[in-house]
Amino acid sequence: MNVTAYAAPAAGQPLAPITIERREVGANNVLIEIEFAGICHSDIHTVNGDWGPQPFPVVPGHEIVGKVTEVGSGVTNHQVGDRVGVGCMVNSCGECTHCKNGDQQFCARGMVGTYAAKDRDGTTTQGGYSTHVVVDADYVLTVPDGIDPAAAAPLLCAGITTYSPLKRWGAGPGKKVAVVGLGGLGHMAVKIAHAMGAEVTVLSQSLKKQEDGLRLGADHYYATSDPDTFKVLRSSFDIIINTVSATINVDAYLGLLTVNGALVNVGAPPESLSLNVFSLLTNGRSFAGSMIGGIPETQEMLDFCAEHAIGSEIEVIAAEKINEAYERVLASDVRYRFVIDASTIG
Amino acid sequence: MNVTAYAAPAAGQPLAPITIERREVGANNVLIEIEFAGICHSDIHTVNGDWGPQPFPVVPGHEIVGKVTEVGSGVTNHQVGDRVGVGCMVNSCGECTHCKNGDQQFCARGMVGTYAAKDRDGTTTQGGYSTHVVVDADYVLTVPDGIDPAAAAPLLCAGITTYSPLKRWGAGPGKKVAVVGLGGLGHMAVKIAHAMGAEVTVLSQSLKKQEDGLRLGADHYYATSDPDTFKVLRSSFDIIINTVSATINVDAYLGLLTVNGALVNVGAPPESLSLNVFSLLTNGRSFAGSMIGGIPETQEMLDFCAEHAIGSEIEVIAAEKINEAYERVLASDVRYRFVIDASTIG
Repeated sequence: MNVTAYAAPAAGQPLAPITIERREVGANNVLIEIEFAGICHSDIHTVNGDWGPQPFPVVPGHEIVGKVTEVGSGVTNHQVGDRVGVGCMVNSCGECTHCKNGDQQFCARGMVGTYAAKDRDGTTTQGGYSTHVVVDADYVLTVPDGIDPAAAAPLLCAGITTYSPLKRWGAGPGKKVAVVGLGGLGHMAVKIAHAMGAEVTVLSQSLKKQEDGLRLGADHYYATSDPDTFKVLRSSFDIIINTVSATINVDAYLGLLTVNGALVNVGAPPESLSLNVFSLLTNGRSFAGSMIGGIPETQEMLDFCAEHAIGSEIEVIAAEKINEAYERVLASDVRYRFVIDASTIG
Repeated sequence: MNVTAYAAPAAGQPLAPITIERREVGANNVLIEIEFAGICHSDIHTVNGDWGPQPFPVVPGHEIVGKVTEVGSGVTNHQVGDRVGVGCMVNSCGECTHCKNGDQQFCARGMVGTYAAKDRDGTTTQGGYSTHVVVDADYVLTVPDGIDPAAAAPLLCAGITTYSPLKRWGAGPGKKVAVVGLGGLGHMAVKIAHAMGAEVTVLSQSLKKQEDGLRLGADHYYATSDPDTFKVLRSSFDIIINTVSATINVDAYLGLLTVNGALVNVGAPPESLSLNVFSLLTNGRSFAGSMIGGIPETQEMLDFCAEHAIGSEIEVIAAEKINEAYERVLASDVRYRFVIDASTIG
C-alpha cells in the first residue's frame, strides 16, 4: 500500500512529501489511519544526523494517534474504529526476559524503533509523519475516550518518558518532586507528578515560564541561574527528574536530594558527566537513568492521563509547517509540543 | 571514670596506651566493658589525617562488642550483663525526620561519630580501642546469643554497611549480586548476600582469593583484570556492591547491570568519577551510594546474622599489635578483619 509521508531526504535537509510503501496487513497487524503525530526533539536529532548515519529517506514521528481501519485475522486486542496510539517502538523479540516482563524497551535483542530502525523482517521502519502506518498489534496502545486525540499524541513519548521514572521512584502524596527544565518532557512531568499527588517544584534556568509552570500544576518554581536556589533547596527532594540534555553540575543537583532520593535523567548529554561519590553516600542518594517505558506501562500511563484529564499542551500545525516547527523547537519557541494534523499530509 | 585506651597522639603517629576519662553514667546511658573492637580502614584514614585535621589524641574504634556493667536510671532496653554492640555513631538529634524514621546516620543536624566527633554535650567522642565506653542507650545494639562476640564486632560497621544496600536494592532469591573487592567489607557482602538467597559473584582484581570467596558463599568469581569479564557478564547483575575506594571505570561496571539494576558504592574514592548518561539510560540503571545504616536496621542486621550464623572472618590480636595490624591492613594482608582483644588493653 502506497501512502504519503513527510521525509528528510538526507541529513540536515528539509522534510518534504514523499510516497512510501506500507506492508500488507499481516495476521497480527493493525492498519492505522493517522490523525496526529507529535514532533519530538529526537526526530530533529535523528534527521540532522546528530545520532550517526541514518537510512535516508527518514520519515520521523513516534508520537502517533489515529483510528484503526483494518486488523489482521489474529488480532484480538484492537478493532476497526478504535482510537489507538503508537509510541517509540513497534517491535521487539517478545521472547527475552525483559520482553516477557513487559520491559520491551530493554529487549535483549534490541527494541525496533518506530522509524529509521531495522524491523525484524529486515525492512526499515518509517514513522508517523504519514497518513497511515501498519504496526504489530502488540505494540499498539488504546487511547481512552476523554483525552483530546491531538493532545494525546505526545503522551506516547513525552508522557511515558516522565511517567515511568515518577512511578518507579515513588512519586505520590507526601513526596517532593523537582522537574529540571520546562519543555516538552518537563511540562508533562509537572502535570503527571502533580496528578500523582506529589508536591512539585520546577527548576528552570530562569523564571520566564513561571506562570505556565504554576498553571500546569507546579507548587514552586525556582531559577537555577540563582545560586541561592541550591542552598535554599538543599536535601529537600525525593525525586528530581532531569529533562535537560545539557551538561549539568551533577553534585549540585544530587545535593538537593533528601534521604534515599534519586536524580533521574531522561535526557542524555553526549559528554560524560563527573560526580563525587560523597554526593551519593550522603543521604544514600542515587543517580539514575530512565528510557521511555514498556508497552503495559505505556497503556497504564494513557489510562492514568485519561482518568486525570491530562494531555500535552500543544500547538497543532499543518504538515507544510514541519520545517518551520523544527526551527522553533531548536529555538525553544514552543509551548510545549508541536503536533502535526495528519489530515494535511495526504 | 578513668580508663585505659590506645590512642594516636598526632596524625600518622603510632598508637600508644593512654588514660582517658569516660563520662559518668547518665540516666539514659549504658556503661560497657569492652570485649572486642574491630579495626576498620576508616580508623587508619582518620588517624593518618587522610580525612582532614582531627582532635588528637584520637582513640579509634567503631566496631565495639562488650558487656553492660551499669545502666542509668532511665534505661529500659539494656540490662547489666547483656552483650551489646556499638557501631559508627553514638548520638544524633533524635528529633529530625531522618532520626524519627530510624535513619540516624543521615541526621539533619549531623550524626555524632563514635570517635573524633563533637558530642551533643560539647565533649569529643573517643572510640572502642579501650576497656570501657559510656554510650546513650538508644545507640547501643543487642548482640544476640549465638554469634561469637569477636566475630560480631566487625558487623557493627562492615556488616551494616553491606547489609543496608543489599536489603534496600532487593537482594534475595532470583537476584544476581556482584561484590567488587573481597576485603573487610566485601567478604561481609558475600556472606550476607548469600544468606539472603541471592546468586553471588565476586569481582576481584585477580583470582588470588577465589578459593576463599567460594568458601564464604560466592557462586562465581571473576578477575576484573581480564577484559573478557566485562563482556561475559554484560547486563547480568541486579545489584553490584562496590567496596573498593579506588577510582573505577563507572561505565564499565554499569554495563554489567540488567534492567533496573544498581551499582552501589560503599567506598568513597576522593577523586570525582566520570560516567556517560547513556550507561544509565540503558536498562534504566542507577549509580547509588550507601552509608552504614540506621539503628533499627543495624539491630535487624545483627538478628539476621545470628539467625544465619554469620560472623566476620577475623584475626584476633592483642592491643600491642595494633600498629603492626595497621601496616598489614594497608598491605591488604588480612583475611578479613583484625579484632582487638580488649582484655589486653587494661
